Amino acid sequence: MKDKGKQQSNRLTVQQKVSEGVVGIFGKDAQGHDKEVYNTSTIVKAKLEDEFPKLSFRYRSELSKKEINDALQKIDKRLGQTLFVSNARIKPDGGIIEVKDDNDNWRVVLVSEAKYQGKDIENIKDGKLVGKNNDQVLMAAGNAIERAHKNICEIANFMLTETYFPYILFLEGSNFLTHNITIPRPDGTVYSIAYDDGTLNRLDRLTAANYGMPINTNLCENKFVSGNGLNIMLQAASIYTQGDGKHWKEEDMINIMLDVARVSLRMIGKDLFKQLTK
Amino acid sequence: MKDKGKQQSNRLTVQQKVSEGVVGIFGKDAQGHDKEVYNTSTIVKAKLEDEFPKLSFRYRSELSKKEINDALQKIDKRLGQTLFVSNARIKPDGGIIEVKDDNDNWRVVLVSEAKYQGKDIENIKDGKLVGKNNDQVLMAAGNAIERAHKNICEIANFMLTETYFPYILFLEGSNFLTHNITIPRPDGTVYSIAYDDGTLNRLDRLTAANYGMPINTNLCENKFVSGNGLNIMLQAASIYTQGDGKHWKEEDMINIMLDVARVSLRMIGKDLFKQLTK
Repeated sequence: MKDKGKQQSNRLTVQQKVSEGVVGIFGKDAQGHDKEVYNTSTIVKAKLEDEFPKLSFRYRSELSKKEINDALQKIDKRLGQTLFVSNARIKPDGGIIEVKDDNDNWRVVLVSEAKYQGKDIENIKDGKLVGKNNDQVLMAAGNAIERAHKNICEIANFMLTETYFPYILFLEGSNFLTHNITIPRPDGTVYSIAYDDGTLNRLDRLTAANYGMPINTNLCENKFVSGNGLNIMLQAASIYTQGDGKHWKEEDMINIMLDVARVSLRMIGKDLFKQLTK
Repeated sequence: MKDKGKQQSNRLTVQQKVSEGVVGIFGKDAQGHDKEVYNTSTIVKAKLEDEFPKLSFRYRSELSKKEINDALQKIDKRLGQTLFVSNARIKPDGGIIEVKDDNDNWRVVLVSEAKYQGKDIENIKDGKLVGKNNDQVLMAAGNAIERAHKNICEIANFMLTETYFPYILFLEGSNFLTHNITIPRPDGTVYSIAYDDGTLNRLDRLTAANYGMPINTNLCENKFVSGNGLNIMLQAASIYTQGDGKHWKEEDMINIMLDVARVSLRMIGKDLFKQLTK
């Protein structure tokens, strides 16, 4: 079956062809030199290696449910017991960057996903009407983006007792506006979209993942809240959106990713101390 | 846009026409007497009222993001700040049952959703081939079910400092098998489906919601686990599946729902004590 979810919420793969490595990735000379494809996370990993030369990093594109189960079992035997498809795995589209700690354990420092949903801006710019009878300006937004919660939940489990949660969700498209925008049409007129139009805006479908804390904010360091005699640790995803419907610039994504990864490293500083001071 | 997710993962609305109320809902005489439609949750609410006559219950089909935000804000001002579409709300398909506590606050005792995904068994029984060229026996499963995590996450936030989590996910369809099955075909032959076939089984896409604890288990009472100097409370959804692809019997669903609701009531017993003992 064709996966409409996947069609609707395309991966925003930011890819670069580079020659030998990541040096000069933003420079014009970096383009078209090689067939090898590096994605943004690969660049971030290289920048982290540069910034923290005493530490070892690795990148991987997927994490098996078995590993998640093993992590949960290590915390408590009651957890992580079920596995139905033996090779089940998750693949956050920006992959996972890890660092080796002083005990030779790999610790997650960054997980990222980038989702694009809502082509209204492009359609209006092109003068293209949509809908069954090709007579609508706006396409009522779908709900495929809600699937984003799944990987967030998996990584939260994998990091259940860590005091930081380096999960970034980058959003782009007309379903994730945070301000009103005006779009020029081919006939010279303009069309305005209100960011809070319920037909389009799907940000509220995601904010459960950050407990309604501000978006476009680095929430990597876990917060603790109290109530009912309990002290609760919050694992909040850092949700970043292009609130005006523009495309993400690779450099902006990289800077956000580096900021989050730096918080991760600081949070596990005591487990990196030996390497950092040797 | 037609929501393929919704098509793929149909709501399993179990509806009954009843005459005056819910008495004899399983009896033949209950059918066709009235236009009013009660769903399973309405029956459960009536049964709870019967079992706990000193308590007041209410049923509602939706919960606004504003209310979820208010609940989060009450715990900590940093939370529940964002709302993009003013009337944003969640609608777990089995709705929400609440009880009034001794302080006149409504407390959640049951939230349920029922999802159907995978029509392979029906297709094989009917001798219907599928796929683009109508030449496949099995339809590769979609991922729409992953959307189920969203409402689980929303309710978990709404109940962030409660020590119980009465969320039930009822699953049905060929994407949620837990044993191998054999299906008779119209031509007299049989077709076997292995439960752990990665093309079909989508249970692993959901088990993050219960930390990989056993399915078909009442996980309403929160567990606590320790690690890294922290004490972590787990809000685990209770995931129930028809592991052989059969349909859910309404009575079985009701019994499971009642069991979970009873745990909820016990967990907030100190806040119901006055009403129960007056």
